[in-house]
Amino acid sequence: MRSTLFDLEKTICQRRTADPAQSYVAKLTARGRGKIAQKVGEEAVETVIAAMTSDKDGAIGESADLLFHLLILLGDMGIPLDAVLDELDRREGVSGIAEKASRPPD
Amino acid sequence: MRSTLFDLEKTICQRRTADPAQSYVAKLTARGRGKIAQKVGEEAVETVIAAMTSDKDGAIGESADLLFHLLILLGDMGIPLDAVLDELDRREGVSGIAEKASRPPD
Amino acid sequence: MRSTLFDLEKTICQRRTADPAQSYVAKLTARGRGKIAQKVGEEAVETVIAAMTSDKDGAIGESADLLFHLLILLGDMGIPLDAVLDELDRREGVSGIAEKASRPPD
Amino acid sequence: MRSTLFDLEKTICQRRTADPAQSYVAKLTARGRGKIAQKVGEEAVETVIAAMTSDKDGAIGESADLLFHLLILLGDMGIPLDAVLDELDRREGVSGIAEKASRPPD
Repeated sequence: MRSTLFDLEKTICQRRTADPAQSYVAKLTARGRGKIAQKVGEEAVETVIAAMTSDKDGAIGESADLLFHLLILLGDMGIPLDAVLDELDRREGVSGIAEKASRPPD
Repeated sequence: MRSTLFDLEKTICQRRTADPAQSYVAKLTARGRGKIAQKVGEEAVETVIAAMTSDKDGAIGESADLLFHLLILLGDMGIPLDAVLDELDRREGVSGIAEKASRPPD
Repeated sequence: MRSTLFDLEKTICQRRTADPAQSYVAKLTARGRGKIAQKVGEEAVETVIAAMTSDKDGAIGESADLLFHLLILLGDMGIPLDAVLDELDRREGVSGIAEKASRPPD
Repeated sequence: MRSTLFDLEKTICQRRTADPAQSYVAKLTARGRGKIAQKVGEEAVETVIAAMTSDKDGAIGESADLLFHLLILLGDMGIPLDAVLDELDRREGVSGIAEKASRPPD
């Protein structure tokens, strides 16, 4: 299994406290939680638009941006990627529609 | 390295053509690209809101939802997760602010 | 000039404290700021998707939903619609690209 | 009743075909439907974040941005603001929770 997301998580963790003039992660982190969350929302919108225009290259790039900023946001909240994957693994024990039915209504 | 996302990608691929009455993935897929993309956007919004309220459990659950629906969207576009991770690996060769500077302005 | 948005703002203000079992506005308000904001984000995503599929009827309906929930959100923050329109009027004194240039970079 | 949104709708309509070097509306319009829709999504995300941080000035500014870009998007689709207000008026005949119940399930 490739380690891309875990390597990226580690890199982000190291860069958070770097010089904001040298690191995008440090610069964004210094601007606060709201700006990081904003980027996650924006990259999701761009992913949606790439998908709706059937732009595969665009969707790959925007999905990469989305994952990158999601990892920055999780890092800012002190949430390890493993916690999110644990949650996905847990749900896989409950399959398909059953899984959705087990969630509280929104 | 854990295989959660790759296992999930495979499961989603298998369920896409399952009975929509039995599988959430099949049901959502049958509703079309727009509905899948809508879910990606909505889960990103929920992730943003959980982050802004410092709700760690919420952020874990919404991030899991976001990844799950992003994988469904990528599957619907015929894009393997590996293509997105390749893009992230490629960028890591270009670090931090330099990486952002290399992207075309938006 | 038609008074639709101002009438709606007044109706929302009156319903905020109504019985949640009788009023959608009261019910959503009772669920808190996060749920109202979530609806604004979701309706925007649906507007985007309707636009990308050139679905005019959909775009009309989703734009109406977006304006409705934006008014609920403004009401929840104690912001009158007039304050937002004042801001738009103020900007119109500064036209086009000049207006954007006068904003701080994001 | 103030005419802010209708005046803005007219101004946007006139600027759509202006010189993109002179007008933000013309410049954004020239970049295509996807870029306009993207701005609507992004401004909604910024409105959500301003709301979650109880930033009233921010929420006023972002709501103004959201309305401005929504009008550009409607203009790009050939949808008059009146069509959206007609839809809101129509719904007001059906009140509160009843109105939501009358919509098809999503």
